[in-house]
Amino acid sequence: MKVSKMLGERFKEAPKDCIIASHALMMRGGYMKYVGNGIYSLFTPTKRITTKIERIIREEMDRIDGQEVMFPVVMPATLWEESGRYTSIGSEMARFKDRSGNPMVLGMTHEEAAVHLARDTAKSYADFPFMIYQVQTKFRDEPRARGGLIRVREFTMKDAYSFHTSQEDLEAYYEKAHEAYERIFKRAGAKNVISVKSDSGMMGGSVSHEFMLLSEIGEDTLAICPECGYKANMEAADCLVKNEAGVAEELTKVHTPNSKTIEEVVNFLGTDAKKLCKAVVYQKNEDDSYIIVFIRGDLEVNETKLRNHLGYEIHPATAITEESGIVAGFIGAIGLDKKIKTVWDRSLVGIESLVCGANETDYHYTGMNVARDIGEVDYVDVAKIYEGAVCPVCGKPVIAINKGIEVGNIFQLGTKYTKSMDMTYLDANGEAKHPIMGCYGIGVGRLCASICQESHDKFGPIWPMSIAPWHVEVCNLRTDNELVNNTANELYESLKNLGVEVLYDDRDIRPGAMFADADLFGVPVRAVVSPKTCEKGVIEVSFRDKSFKGEFPIAEAAEKIKEIVKAELAKYEI
Amino acid sequence: MKVSKMLGERFKEAPKDCIIASHALMMRGGYMKYVGNGIYSLFTPTKRITTKIERIIREEMDRIDGQEVMFPVVMPATLWEESGRYTSIGSEMARFKDRSGNPMVLGMTHEEAAVHLARDTAKSYADFPFMIYQVQTKFRDEPRARGGLIRVREFTMKDAYSFHTSQEDLEAYYEKAHEAYERIFKRAGAKNVISVKSDSGMMGGSVSHEFMLLSEIGEDTLAICPECGYKANMEAADCLVKNEAGVAEELTKVHTPNSKTIEEVVNFLGTDAKKLCKAVVYQKNEDDSYIIVFIRGDLEVNETKLRNHLGYEIHPATAITEESGIVAGFIGAIGLDKKIKTVWDRSLVGIESLVCGANETDYHYTGMNVARDIGEVDYVDVAKIYEGAVCPVCGKPVIAINKGIEVGNIFQLGTKYTKSMDMTYLDANGEAKHPIMGCYGIGVGRLCASICQESHDKFGPIWPMSIAPWHVEVCNLRTDNELVNNTANELYESLKNLGVEVLYDDRDIRPGAMFADADLFGVPVRAVVSPKTCEKGVIEVSFRDKSFKGEFPIAEAAEKIKEIVKAELAKYEI
Repeated sequence: MKVSKMLGERFKEAPKDCIIASHALMMRGGYMKYVGNGIYSLFTPTKRITTKIERIIREEMDRIDGQEVMFPVVMPATLWEESGRYTSIGSEMARFKDRSGNPMVLGMTHEEAAVHLARDTAKSYADFPFMIYQVQTKFRDEPRARGGLIRVREFTMKDAYSFHTSQEDLEAYYEKAHEAYERIFKRAGAKNVISVKSDSGMMGGSVSHEFMLLSEIGEDTLAICPECGYKANMEAADCLVKNEAGVAEELTKVHTPNSKTIEEVVNFLGTDAKKLCKAVVYQKNEDDSYIIVFIRGDLEVNETKLRNHLGYEIHPATAITEESGIVAGFIGAIGLDKKIKTVWDRSLVGIESLVCGANETDYHYTGMNVARDIGEVDYVDVAKIYEGAVCPVCGKPVIAINKGIEVGNIFQLGTKYTKSMDMTYLDANGEAKHPIMGCYGIGVGRLCASICQESHDKFGPIWPMSIAPWHVEVCNLRTDNELVNNTANELYESLKNLGVEVLYDDRDIRPGAMFADADLFGVPVRAVVSPKTCEKGVIEVSFRDKSFKGEFPIAEAAEKIKEIVKAELAKYEI
Repeated sequence: MKVSKMLGERFKEAPKDCIIASHALMMRGGYMKYVGNGIYSLFTPTKRITTKIERIIREEMDRIDGQEVMFPVVMPATLWEESGRYTSIGSEMARFKDRSGNPMVLGMTHEEAAVHLARDTAKSYADFPFMIYQVQTKFRDEPRARGGLIRVREFTMKDAYSFHTSQEDLEAYYEKAHEAYERIFKRAGAKNVISVKSDSGMMGGSVSHEFMLLSEIGEDTLAICPECGYKANMEAADCLVKNEAGVAEELTKVHTPNSKTIEEVVNFLGTDAKKLCKAVVYQKNEDDSYIIVFIRGDLEVNETKLRNHLGYEIHPATAITEESGIVAGFIGAIGLDKKIKTVWDRSLVGIESLVCGANETDYHYTGMNVARDIGEVDYVDVAKIYEGAVCPVCGKPVIAINKGIEVGNIFQLGTKYTKSMDMTYLDANGEAKHPIMGCYGIGVGRLCASICQESHDKFGPIWPMSIAPWHVEVCNLRTDNELVNNTANELYESLKNLGVEVLYDDRDIRPGAMFADADLFGVPVRAVVSPKTCEKGVIEVSFRDKSFKGEFPIAEAAEKIKEIVKAELAKYEI
């Protein structure tokens, strides 16, 4: 491909709304164009990168016996009514009526379509297990598109669905899918991708993992144990604390004027936040009824964990009415209206004496002992994990908090969809059973942008050879010099004939401008032809990541470059 | 791929709504599943076929310097408002509002997106010409989806857009694109594809061609001259007639009781339909005002040509009111209300004496001479061409009428979109100009179904080797026989190792059922392993199209089959 013929332009200044590097560089480098909020057109370099990523994904899906299929983007709402998600999913799902007035949806995920495709065909246990996948456009009406291709509304996704006759079989396959994902990210040149236990959210199911590319600009927060390797999304991480029991005291009501916050109470009573029984108030979305969470004073509530525990949608209390009997700032379990739902975080377990509100303005209790003063309570884990928390696996207080971009996810779905959509098979005993499903997603464009985020310098992306839009860029520094021109043209043709993917900058522009553009193209190997190199009878070859610079005799250059490319490509093969 | 592991089932009876063979066979063969009106999920065999078709298309697009890009499926309505098509296109375009209330559309074609992508980047004449293309999902809310993948609402399309600085350059490129299309259809194994001049319809522009796969089940009607090769869509074909002048007569009003139709008048007056001046009444959609077309009695009006001539939408008159002054069955030009719009088809040119209505119930005129009795009129061509019509190119009365399925189209768009969307470049003189565009489309799924329609027998599709889902099917007729089983397994593995794409029917089913399924899979080469063949030490090899049947010694079979596949594939390379 000749740069002179290629659509797209490079520029110096990033558009104003680009707050992360990969977004800025991909806009500046002519990789994509903004069409609307979270919607982009992709120029040829991006299309070439994503095609290579898709090829890697397909190879790895086929390697774990995936069958590529194709589901529709537009689906009748009736299909989503079967699973119940037509109503349970909100405005992130785009809906319209067709010319006949039938409600339709744009697929944001394809569990329903997968079950629909499989349910009349796989009827005997002998037909299982199998996995079907597609690479297809999806639309999710994200409330906050951001970061270029990192979070968009329209995107290309590989989504896979596996069907099994036993949980063990699902788990074994899930493990294979996990390995395939590790291979995909490695082969695509993503260096810092880890898998973490995650919350399954709207997908349903229990066990799930997210593949996170570690990055400061990530939207997800991860808890990682550097000792034992435990890794989890904040939303899913178990929070363990080690409490000092302290000594049992008598329950005493004390006057705590104007001491509403944890800090105020701690200061007023000269105690430790770890001795406080903090109350956090939520409301159920459905009817605004109150939920009070009791948790150790120094900890925060993890709303996702709370939501999963309760099984319904909640929000932090917006207004506490007088009739509620809740005395904000002085809430406690003793004497609280029994009609109010309470949740006890397990961080309170084992503390002999706690400070808690007395449900009366300006009063707290000290010496509160849950078992003695309240009775039996069910402790659950709804606390947010924190830097230095106890690792739930190895028990060491060394949890580190990191940011990550979710580049893939895998879910054990169970029978959520096969039950609701009534997919059954006959087992070996002739009994009808619901198959057990797994699902497995990777966002192609997001992976591309995440790799750019991970692998760039201030001048442009540094694409890994395995997904680079081209292997080599030939820079012709003097198109008006016959020798330079012929040498560059010949190198371009020779490389192409050797099967090397070449971008050829054949424009009559200043070397500085050409190199600036080359940095933005991010092609891993650069071959420069100039009067100086021609005089020496060489081609100057360097790596975009600066790890190599050398000169090859003109006659051998194409072959040498091919060898370099081959060696680089081999690094990404597993 | 092993059939035992493949999702999808084959069955004997076609679903009731399948009225064409390809639809019935692709449903019966487990190629696709109905999701909703004009919406299908595709099983692996279809996905494999369409992937191969897409690869051929991409190679040919790249060969004419295409740059692959990606436009969004969902676009903001504002983009379509720029071109004016947001209002000019009706309910075939799906529309919805996003969560912020912004009107959005689903792309049914991407001229707007192409201009949007190119307009800020290609600013100098030196940046031209270029062509960008994509392979992407489209949604058109077709009023009548039919024939399986022949006419659907959601489909995968390759759409390409070229930009030029002169009409000559567009025409030269258009010619190259025409040749690329011919190569694509040939390489995909479509045997009877011709290109015909067509009507540009909603795309705008002037010159356009459709690529038609000749087939009885085609929805398009084509006029073809077997003498000189002239080919046109009925909608675009010039209708030429040779009239006998006859002799001049006096204008005479005659009583023609109850003679309203052409047939009745011909019988009553004992004349020839070719002497009649037939009147056909239309109404303008906008205000229901009348348009009367005068045309030779034996011809029909081509509504598309009439619409293009008038420049507005029309429909056949639904009700002729009394106030209109139009006397249905006896309409003529003499004495007609001057306010009524009239159109004169050129089929009336040169006839000295015509019979026409007298605008009075039960009366006609004979001896009507247009020039003498009406004066100067503008003759235009709005007649439908017919079997045996005069070829507009070679002049011989040998036009044949054929049916075809439109599998591709190419348009010279001119500046319709670059003007309305204000895309300009500076020419060599520094003047701002609008680029001239061409656009080029191929429906991937429709091509797949059309090839099936063209290439099948009553047992199933006969896929051309170049797009076949697999090259070879190995049939293991006795999985319970160790020798047969081992031989078949080894053949499967050897073929895979040789790079041959193999479908392996490893199921324990009756040979009859296995062969019936094999016919539905339509894989070009079949290799049968049975106790009988093993005894003889051979593999039985045959072609799905019955053009070859033979036996190869087991040890050589894989290599021999590979050679056969290679030779077959070579037939489709150009």
